[in-house]
Amino acid sequence: MFLAKVQVSLKPTVNDPQGITIARALDRLGFDSVDSLRAGKYFEVKINGDDQSAAEADVKLMCEKLLANPVIETYSFELETI
Amino acid sequence: MFLAKVQVSLKPTVNDPQGITIARALDRLGFDSVDSLRAGKYFEVKINGDDQSAAEADVKLMCEKLLANPVIETYSFELETI
Repeated sequence: MFLAKVQVSLKPTVNDPQGITIARALDRLGFDSVDSLRAGKYFEVKINGDDQSAAEADVKLMCEKLLANPVIETYSFELETI
Repeated sequence: MFLAKVQVSLKPTVNDPQGITIARALDRLGFDSVDSLRAGKYFEVKINGDDQSAAEADVKLMCEKLLANPVIETYSFELETI
């Protein structure tokens, strides 16, 4: 069995009002070292099977079909055996 | 300057209807190897300064004060120099 940790974030050119709001809130809380913040999504997917390359291909396809919107988002993931 | 990549996920005992719905959608799309899925949040925070341990302490405090809800969520982060 594998655990895929998937990070999905907006492409750098896409406006991120949620991130801007959070960065402003951090500044108001006194964190003046924050330069900028981008908000995204995180998924932990448990995948049955023993074939690492098949699991990797599956996760890639999941990201492209459902987890991320490839028009405005990028994704990255790590796969670990559990 | 540092880049903190922060993952926030629900504690294992907390019900995650969003994750259950996404797992069901993946199953419907034909990904029958998916065992379970947990949904969370992801932040990329750019932090000014040269002091790695100060930046680390800052990110930890940000997570505890704003980015994560310590009652129901856990967080982890990696810091890289940029």
